[in-house]
Amino acid sequence: MKALIKEKPGPGAALRQVEIPRIGPHDVLVKVIATSICGTDLHIYNWDSWAASRMNLPVIMGHEMAGEIVELGPAVEGYFKGDYVSLECHQACGRCYQCRTGQAHICRDYTITGVDFDGCFAEYVRVPAANLWLNSRELPPEIACLQDPLGNAVLALSSAPLTGKNVLITGCGAIGLFAVGVARAAGAARVYAADINDYRLEIAAQMGAGTVINPRRESLVKKVHADTAGCGVDIFVEMSGNESCLHDGLQAMKNGGHAALLGIPADKVTLDLANEVVFKGITLAGITGRKIFDTWYTTAALLSGVLDIRPVITHRMKLEDYEEAFEIMKAGQCGKIILYP
Amino acid sequence: MKALIKEKPGPGAALRQVEIPRIGPHDVLVKVIATSICGTDLHIYNWDSWAASRMNLPVIMGHEMAGEIVELGPAVEGYFKGDYVSLECHQACGRCYQCRTGQAHICRDYTITGVDFDGCFAEYVRVPAANLWLNSRELPPEIACLQDPLGNAVLALSSAPLTGKNVLITGCGAIGLFAVGVARAAGAARVYAADINDYRLEIAAQMGAGTVINPRRESLVKKVHADTAGCGVDIFVEMSGNESCLHDGLQAMKNGGHAALLGIPADKVTLDLANEVVFKGITLAGITGRKIFDTWYTTAALLSGVLDIRPVITHRMKLEDYEEAFEIMKAGQCGKIILYP
Amino acid sequence: MKALIKEKPGPGAALRQVEIPRIGPHDVLVKVIATSICGTDLHIYNWDSWAASRMNLPVIMGHEMAGEIVELGPAVEGYFKGDYVSLECHQACGRCYQCRTGQAHICRDYTITGVDFDGCFAEYVRVPAANLWLNSRELPPEIACLQDPLGNAVLALSSAPLTGKNVLITGCGAIGLFAVGVARAAGAARVYAADINDYRLEIAAQMGAGTVINPRRESLVKKVHADTAGCGVDIFVEMSGNESCLHDGLQAMKNGGHAALLGIPADKVTLDLANEVVFKGITLAGITGRKIFDTWYTTAALLSGVLDIRPVITHRMKLEDYEEAFEIMKAGQCGKIILYP
Amino acid sequence: MKALIKEKPGPGAALRQVEIPRIGPHDVLVKVIATSICGTDLHIYNWDSWAASRMNLPVIMGHEMAGEIVELGPAVEGYFKGDYVSLECHQACGRCYQCRTGQAHICRDYTITGVDFDGCFAEYVRVPAANLWLNSRELPPEIACLQDPLGNAVLALSSAPLTGKNVLITGCGAIGLFAVGVARAAGAARVYAADINDYRLEIAAQMGAGTVINPRRESLVKKVHADTAGCGVDIFVEMSGNESCLHDGLQAMKNGGHAALLGIPADKVTLDLANEVVFKGITLAGITGRKIFDTWYTTAALLSGVLDIRPVITHRMKLEDYEEAFEIMKAGQCGKIILYP
Repeated sequence: MKALIKEKPGPGAALRQVEIPRIGPHDVLVKVIATSICGTDLHIYNWDSWAASRMNLPVIMGHEMAGEIVELGPAVEGYFKGDYVSLECHQACGRCYQCRTGQAHICRDYTITGVDFDGCFAEYVRVPAANLWLNSRELPPEIACLQDPLGNAVLALSSAPLTGKNVLITGCGAIGLFAVGVARAAGAARVYAADINDYRLEIAAQMGAGTVINPRRESLVKKVHADTAGCGVDIFVEMSGNESCLHDGLQAMKNGGHAALLGIPADKVTLDLANEVVFKGITLAGITGRKIFDTWYTTAALLSGVLDIRPVITHRMKLEDYEEAFEIMKAGQCGKIILYP
Repeated sequence: MKALIKEKPGPGAALRQVEIPRIGPHDVLVKVIATSICGTDLHIYNWDSWAASRMNLPVIMGHEMAGEIVELGPAVEGYFKGDYVSLECHQACGRCYQCRTGQAHICRDYTITGVDFDGCFAEYVRVPAANLWLNSRELPPEIACLQDPLGNAVLALSSAPLTGKNVLITGCGAIGLFAVGVARAAGAARVYAADINDYRLEIAAQMGAGTVINPRRESLVKKVHADTAGCGVDIFVEMSGNESCLHDGLQAMKNGGHAALLGIPADKVTLDLANEVVFKGITLAGITGRKIFDTWYTTAALLSGVLDIRPVITHRMKLEDYEEAFEIMKAGQCGKIILYP
Repeated sequence: MKALIKEKPGPGAALRQVEIPRIGPHDVLVKVIATSICGTDLHIYNWDSWAASRMNLPVIMGHEMAGEIVELGPAVEGYFKGDYVSLECHQACGRCYQCRTGQAHICRDYTITGVDFDGCFAEYVRVPAANLWLNSRELPPEIACLQDPLGNAVLALSSAPLTGKNVLITGCGAIGLFAVGVARAAGAARVYAADINDYRLEIAAQMGAGTVINPRRESLVKKVHADTAGCGVDIFVEMSGNESCLHDGLQAMKNGGHAALLGIPADKVTLDLANEVVFKGITLAGITGRKIFDTWYTTAALLSGVLDIRPVITHRMKLEDYEEAFEIMKAGQCGKIILYP
Repeated sequence: MKALIKEKPGPGAALRQVEIPRIGPHDVLVKVIATSICGTDLHIYNWDSWAASRMNLPVIMGHEMAGEIVELGPAVEGYFKGDYVSLECHQACGRCYQCRTGQAHICRDYTITGVDFDGCFAEYVRVPAANLWLNSRELPPEIACLQDPLGNAVLALSSAPLTGKNVLITGCGAIGLFAVGVARAAGAARVYAADINDYRLEIAAQMGAGTVINPRRESLVKKVHADTAGCGVDIFVEMSGNESCLHDGLQAMKNGGHAALLGIPADKVTLDLANEVVFKGITLAGITGRKIFDTWYTTAALLSGVLDIRPVITHRMKLEDYEEAFEIMKAGQCGKIILYP
C-alpha cells in the first residue's frame, strides 16, 4: 500500500509502497477514505526539537482519519466489516489512576497514532478496537476525519458555560477556528477571535466570530474592554501558544472568568500571577486531547446539524501531493487540508 | 392613573383610576411602557385556591414590565430619570441564608410584585431600586418585559450543559416555548417539545423544536426512544405541571440524565422513585424564579442577538382589553400576550 | 468447595459442596477470605418479588468480598497470583453510552455478582479482571470486603460539598451508618441520623452522628428546624426507602439544598413536588452503585486512616452459620455481619 | 481612643490617641475586643512597594477583628447594640457585574478596611452594616477575629473535593496553617505541608499535616512521588508566593489535579505552561478574599466543633506592644499574633 513515512531525522517525509499492516487480536484494519493534516504532523515533517526528542523512526505519519473496517481481530466485539469509523489517536494505558477514573485523555502513559506507532497517511491503518469511533453514514469522510481536532475545541469549550457569555479565542489555526464555531453554536453572546493571519481571521468570521482582531493592527485588550464597558470576557480560549496572546487574554478577562489553555508555547512563559490570575479570581484549565468518548459524543452530535465546519476546510488534495500540502501549512495560507490516499 | 386591580375574591378584575404610587427612599417610580400576562396573573384573575390562600386584596396585578424611571427616592444610587428598566418581581428579604449566599431567588421569605404588593398592570409602578434591571435601548419594550419569564427558562436550562445534548421539554406554555428557544440557542442536538395544544406546538416548531409531540396522538416515550436508539434524552425540562408528562419525561431520559422541574402540579404526584430516579442515577432540580442577577445577565445577553423570541408573542393588546386577553389565555390559543397601558 | 446456593424459589438457601468455578480468559479465580451480607442478599434469601422477578436459579449468593487471586486467565494483564483483591459487583456491558463516558455504574445493561451469576459466599469465586480492585495489604479482610457498601455511601455523599454543612441521614442500615461516618470524616458541621431502630441509632452515634432521632419518639422535622433556627439541613441522604422519611427529609431541608436518594421504596411514593422540591429549589440525585473506579479510590483512601468503620461490624460468623446470620439480619439487631467461608 | 496609625511613608507605625470614629446612617460602631495581625499589616508596617503605591495616609491599621456593637446608624436594620460581630474587610461596590452575581469577593472596585479607610487596631472601629458577620457567643474573641484569614483558606479549599484526596500545601504562614486544618477536617487522605520555616512546620504537624517537608532539606517532588507511587497529589494549595514552590507543587500534582493559588509572588513567575499545566490537564484557580457570606457560613460552621485552630495562635499581646509583635512577625517565629486593644 501507499504510505507517507517519516523515515529519518531531518525535514520532509517520503511516500513509499509498504506492506498492509498486520493486526493483533484486539485490532481492526481500516481502509482509509480521508485524512487531514494536524499541526503535529507539521512538527514531525519539519522535524523540530519536540519530534526529534520523542520519535523512533520510521513511522507512518497521520492520526486524523475516516475509513471503513475491512478486517477484524478475533477478540474484537461489537464492530463489523464495513463499519464506517474514525479513530481516537491517544492510546491510553488502561491501568493508571486517570484511565480507571474516566480521564483516559490524560493517561499518565499514553501513546499517539502516527507519532509513537504507524498512523493513517496510508491506504490502510491498524486501529485498536478500543480507539474506534463509529460514524454516522450521513457524515462525509472529510468531516468525519476532523472530529479529532474538533474534539479538542469541544473539550476546551466544555469547561465552562458559554450560553449568553462573551468568549475570546486567540489563535485561529484549525482548532481555534473550530472553537469559534463551537462557541457560536453554544450560544455565546459575542465571539472575539484574534490572530495575526488575516486569511484565518476571514475564516473565523465565516465560522461566526462577531469581532475579529489582528493584534498587529489594534489592541485586543482595548477592543474587548471598549466593547464590554470595561468588564471583559467571561471565557478566554488560548489556542495560539503565543505568550502575548496569553497576557492579552488574561487582561481582557472578567474577574472570575474562566480560561481554557490548549495552545502549546514553544518556550516558558512569564506570568504576573498576582494581577493576571490571583486577584482576578480567574480559573485556568489546561486542555489536552478529548474525553474518551464523552467529547466524541458531543462532537458527533454537533455535526449532526448544529455546527457547520466546512468553512475551515480550505484544501482537498491527494496524498501524493503531500509536499505541496505541507508547504501550504507552513505558509499558513490554509484552514484544514484534507488528504485522500 | 389607570390600573388593573384585583379588588375582591372571585373571578375577574377591574380597571380603575387610582392615584400614582408614592415611593419610599429606596424606590423608583417607573412609567410602564409594556407589560405581559403571566400564568400567575391568570391564577389571580380566576381566583383559584392558591390565589385565595395567598393574597390580601386589593392589589394592582402584573409583574412583567418594561418602562422608564420618572422619579427616584432620595437614597437611590446608580439610576437616573429616563433609565429604561425592567423589574425582578421577587423581592427578597436580604437577611436569610439564601439571600446572603447569592441565592436570593430562593429566599425563605420573599414577596412578589403584583401578588403581595401593587404591580405593573398600570400606568406607573413603584419598584424598589434593588429590583431594577437596566435594559439596553435596543431592546423593544415588548421583548424587555418578557425577560422575567424568559429568565425562568434560562435558569431551568442552566442547570446542565446543553450543547450537543438531546433535550425534551414538556409543556409549551410561554416558559416552555422560551425553553425551546434557549435550548436551540445553546446548541442542543435535538429539541423535543411536547404539549397537547397544537397551536402551541406550532410555535414550538418555530422556536426551534426539531420534533414536536402531541401525547394525545403519539407516545412521547416511544418516539424519543425510537429516535435515540433506546438511549433517551440527556436533559428533561418539565414545564407543564402535568403528572403524566413527568412520568413520560423520566422514562424518556438517559441513565445519568438531568431533569429541571419548573411546572407546578396542581396536586401531589406519585413517583416510582426506584425505577424512575434512583436506579437510573437521574438528577432532578427544582427551579423557581431567576438568579438575581446572574440569570438576568444571561437572559439579556441572549436577547442581544443570539435568541429571537418574537414567535412567542402572539397578541398585542391595550390594557383596556384585559377581559378579552384573559379569555384568550384561558382558551390556550396564545403564546404571550403583551398589554400596553 | 463450600458454597451457599439459592437453589430454588422460596425462602432460604442451601450450603452445598460444588465444583470450584472455571474461569475464562479474562477472569481470575479468587480464594475468598471474608465476605459480608448485603440487604440484597436478604431479599434473595427471603425470595421477595424483586428476587423472584429477576433471578434464574441456581446461583451462588454473595457479592461483598476480600480474597486472594489463585489463578489467572491467559488474557489477564496487570494482576498476579497472591494479589489481595476485592470486587466491584456490577459487571457493565462496556458498550453503551454510559459505559463509554465514565458512567459504567449506571450502565444500561449491567449484571450483578451473586444475583445474575455465581457470587462469593463460597470458598472460591470467579471474577472478571475488569471488576478487580487491588487492596492494600494493611486493610483487614473484614474491612476490605465492606468497600462495596461503603462505596455506595461515598458516592451518595460525593454529590455535594459536606464540609461545614449540616447533613441529615435517614435510615441507619449499614449504608446509612457508613454515610454517617463519611459525613463526619468529610467535616460535616452536624450529622443528624434517623431510624426507628435504637440498636442502629446507637451505632450511628458511635460513627459520629451528633444527633440521633427516632421518629417514633420525636419529630425529625421539628428537631432539625429547632436546631438550625428554621433554616434546615444543607444535605439530605435518604437511605431507608421509607416514604415518611422522604417527606421528613425534604421538609427538613434548606431552600437550595441537595438530596441524595439511595433508599429503594417498596412502593411508589407520593410527593408534593411543588412545595417539597420546586419552590425550595432543591436538587434530588438518584444514587446507585459506585463510580468505577473513582468511588473505589476515594473509599480506599478514606480507609487508609481517615475513617474507622469498625463500629458497624457487629457480627463475625462462619459461612456455615448462615441461617443464624440471616435471622439476625431479619431482626435488624445488627450492623454488618461478616461471614468467613 | 487608642489607635495604631500608619501616619507617614516609611517603616513603622504610631500608637496615638484619636477621636472615636463617627458613623454614617448605614454603619455601626464596634468596640474592638480582639484583633489579629495579617501579613498585609506587615507589608504596611514595613512600607513595601505595594503599600506605597496603594495607600493614602494616615490610616488606622488592622482588619481582623471581633467586637461588640455599641452604636447603630439610623438606616441599619437587623443588628442590635451588644451584638457580637466580626467584619468582612472587603467593601464591595455593590454595582458591578461581580457584585450583582454573588461574586462580591472579586468586585472590580472594592476597598479594604485598614488599607483604604480606617481599621480595627483601635478601641473602636466603624463598620458598614453590609460587612458585619454575627458571631456565636460561644466563639472566643481570639478565634472569632481569625475568621477572615481562616476564610481565605476555606475558600481556597472549597474549589475542589478534598475527602479521600491527597493535598499539598506550600507555605505555612497563618493561612497555610489554617489550610492544613481545613484539609484535615474535610477528610483529606494525606496532607503534605511544606515550608522552609521549621517553627511553622511544627505547627503544621499539630494542625494535622501527616507529612511536613522542608524543601531546604529534602525534595518535595520526590517525597510526594515516592509516597504516591508516582501518581502525585490531587490538590495543590499554593500559599507561599514563592516561585519554586509553585513549580514543585505543579510537578507534584496528578494529571487532572486542581491547584488553588492564593500566595502572591513578589515578582512575575516563569511557567513551563505546556508541561506543568496543559499536558497534565491541570486546573489553576486564583483565590482571593472570601465569598460574601458563603465562605463565612462554612468557616463559622467549622469553628462550631469540627476544626480547632488554636495551635496557630502563638502569641497574645497588648496593642501597646505592637512593635514587638511586628518584630516577631518579621522574624517568622510565630503563627498568628492576637492583639488586644
